[in-house]
Amino acid sequence: MTMNRLPAALIETLEHMLPGRVSVAQAVREHHGRDESHFPPALPDAVVFPHTTDEVAAIARACHAAGVPMIPFGAGSSLEGHVLAVRGGVCIDLTQMNRIVTLHAEDFDVTVQPGVTRKQLNAEIRDSGLFFPIDPGADATLGGMAATRASGTNAVRYGTMRENLLGATAVLADGRVLRTGGRARKSAAGYDLARLMVGSEGTLGIITELTLKLYPVPEAIAAAVCCFPSVHDAVRCVIQTIQLGVPIARIELLDTLSVQAINAYSKTALQEAPTLFFEFHGSAAGVDEQASTVQAVSKEFGGTDFSWANRPEDRSRLWQARHDAYFACINLKPGWRSLTTDVCVPISQLSDCIAATRDDIEANGLIAPILGHVGDGNFHVLVLTDPASPDDNARAEAFHDRLVRRALAHEGTCTGEHGIGFGKAQFLALEHGETAVSVMRAIKQALDPLNLLNPAKVLPE
Amino acid sequence: MTMNRLPAALIETLEHMLPGRVSVAQAVREHHGRDESHFPPALPDAVVFPHTTDEVAAIARACHAAGVPMIPFGAGSSLEGHVLAVRGGVCIDLTQMNRIVTLHAEDFDVTVQPGVTRKQLNAEIRDSGLFFPIDPGADATLGGMAATRASGTNAVRYGTMRENLLGATAVLADGRVLRTGGRARKSAAGYDLARLMVGSEGTLGIITELTLKLYPVPEAIAAAVCCFPSVHDAVRCVIQTIQLGVPIARIELLDTLSVQAINAYSKTALQEAPTLFFEFHGSAAGVDEQASTVQAVSKEFGGTDFSWANRPEDRSRLWQARHDAYFACINLKPGWRSLTTDVCVPISQLSDCIAATRDDIEANGLIAPILGHVGDGNFHVLVLTDPASPDDNARAEAFHDRLVRRALAHEGTCTGEHGIGFGKAQFLALEHGETAVSVMRAIKQALDPLNLLNPAKVLPE
Repeated sequence: MTMNRLPAALIETLEHMLPGRVSVAQAVREHHGRDESHFPPALPDAVVFPHTTDEVAAIARACHAAGVPMIPFGAGSSLEGHVLAVRGGVCIDLTQMNRIVTLHAEDFDVTVQPGVTRKQLNAEIRDSGLFFPIDPGADATLGGMAATRASGTNAVRYGTMRENLLGATAVLADGRVLRTGGRARKSAAGYDLARLMVGSEGTLGIITELTLKLYPVPEAIAAAVCCFPSVHDAVRCVIQTIQLGVPIARIELLDTLSVQAINAYSKTALQEAPTLFFEFHGSAAGVDEQASTVQAVSKEFGGTDFSWANRPEDRSRLWQARHDAYFACINLKPGWRSLTTDVCVPISQLSDCIAATRDDIEANGLIAPILGHVGDGNFHVLVLTDPASPDDNARAEAFHDRLVRRALAHEGTCTGEHGIGFGKAQFLALEHGETAVSVMRAIKQALDPLNLLNPAKVLPE
Repeated sequence: MTMNRLPAALIETLEHMLPGRVSVAQAVREHHGRDESHFPPALPDAVVFPHTTDEVAAIARACHAAGVPMIPFGAGSSLEGHVLAVRGGVCIDLTQMNRIVTLHAEDFDVTVQPGVTRKQLNAEIRDSGLFFPIDPGADATLGGMAATRASGTNAVRYGTMRENLLGATAVLADGRVLRTGGRARKSAAGYDLARLMVGSEGTLGIITELTLKLYPVPEAIAAAVCCFPSVHDAVRCVIQTIQLGVPIARIELLDTLSVQAINAYSKTALQEAPTLFFEFHGSAAGVDEQASTVQAVSKEFGGTDFSWANRPEDRSRLWQARHDAYFACINLKPGWRSLTTDVCVPISQLSDCIAATRDDIEANGLIAPILGHVGDGNFHVLVLTDPASPDDNARAEAFHDRLVRRALAHEGTCTGEHGIGFGKAQFLALEHGETAVSVMRAIKQALDPLNLLNPAKVLPE
């Protein structure tokens, strides 16, 4: 056990503020020093569990005075090393701030604390007839989802955290409390600080309250599964569906290996072939109309076995299996890790980009299922690597580098929804150019001149 | 005629860069020193007409070296004094940068120069089957619309410039060229600089290229007009429609005085009563479904004469009349100006906020039609003032102050779509708090330390 690097006075101050809610125990630090990424753990020196914005502000003031880094922590489900305490410091675990503050059902909005998870939110507002659509694979916290600009399977219809956060409260590096945005559906009042906080990955502020848009539960929902002769055909079906302007709620691609992984992990009996999962939302007539259009498009591209999941429990099982796909794929090689890629390209470029990526996987003998939110042009490759093999990891990293360059050549982005985190900082200038990175750096410097908020994330150091 | 305050060397440099495209003529400066707001004109010292991003960058480098302010200029249709050269300097007129750069019809996006107007864009892409929905009253430039985070009559369905700008190129105060965002539908790659530029009103960068989302022209469109016994009833109909989750494309309120103004100005024969304009987009069946729901809701609140505009030319006439409402209302008192308010509140607060505002108008004997994009909770009061009467103006300003405080008390914003500009800076801290304003100021300082980009706008000086 290493000596704790925190000043004793800081720990005393924190313990005085949050009696019983400060831990320096090895097990607690270990739990907070890792996430779902393939990066090696990096432990914080202490973990604190605030309950209120004021407590987070007080923690920030104390850490700021002591010059100690702060790392916000939610569900720990990051795939990009967001929570790694690579410069040590205090991990601020926000999961005990898990209260729904105010539901304004008549305005379709809700204000929550950041530790509320997406499933918890939907469970608690069920009786309102409203729901919150954004669903990354994990049951992430809403604070973490805002911080990483997360999305999920139905962003194609409902947008991402960027479009669905109306307002936020955030604690700045020096402990000042920023309130931005609000409950109005639109505003042209000054710089869009709410959008600046979304996707800043805890490097500009610690989100302590969020106001989110909600949507009426559709009158009718229908889900379906369809197999295709090849990934290429499935992707062409997606492109055609999007280009026809069908307001589809979900359209997800799984390649054969992903389907095999899901069948093994989730005990499903899906046909093991390139597959699309669909979901349609609307009025009963609207859903019928969308579904028949998409069924016709599927046939055009050789789709077979268009099978329906009409009962809510069948739909839940289908989407739970989709959400568990990450764990299912990792489970293909027990004990291995996954380097999970996240590129996103314009829909017209999707087919070429995926085809070249599949060639690359085959040419390099990687075990790497492909799946993703292809209605947005976003797909993931889960490159499975043996943690004992440095060579494996190097091959995965080299593949990732090629994939990102390929996506950028197709006018895409290195990350559709996972964020930059610790692992993709080297791609930031490649994607946006040096001027954009220097502007981001100037903003970071203006808001956090001591570089205390989640250091070594987003911006290359 | 005042002496030109610009260094002679700067004018020479600009003339050398842009031969024949630099003007210091009084008439040109007067044209560029005013907009549609009620503020007195403030003339720039020179006006330049660049054609490319590189030219704008060169202008910025020259002005930066000379310490001279720069004011971007589009259609001059601002209602908030955005283009007033209150510290003198060089007006950068972007209207000659009016080319559509690339249309990606298959990806539903288009890249344009900033001087392209919304009507020009829709005319030029007509054959693609796509359209750009955002429509402020004026035929504004898309650069200006992005800079002010504009919206219009169908934001309730399609969002504002915030949601519809995918990427942008902007020239910074020192002439560096920032590229941000891109063509992917979503990205989690770093700070959202595109959203920071949207609504920054030319104070952080000069937008020289924009990539915008487009939408398929709906299979079916239907528009209708309905009268109500009172504004209160009309607003309750709006609230109910929104709360039912009807995906309405447009739902606009006009009070009796607005309708009278429109009839006089646009030679229409609308019944002179509180009125809603509706538009429905979707499949033929979808539009029928929406329309019959809304018709039923209208009846519930005493709506009568639900009359349809089914032919495209009737619809165009209806919406042109709506878009001309601003000029129609001003025309109620020829020679007078309008102080145009722009508050936006959560939909549940709309009825109370409008009722209190009407009481205020009556109690103070103002001539002030009310109209607006009530599906978003956004409404305008056009307070007509005699420019010859300082008392009139003071009464209008006092009314505006009360209205903004009322909207903020209803958890709204001082501006839904017009921006802060020159006139609302005093409300920024009231709405967002001192911390938010200080963060905005820190960002401005980081990006434009010499305060050369559109000084005295957005942030109170």
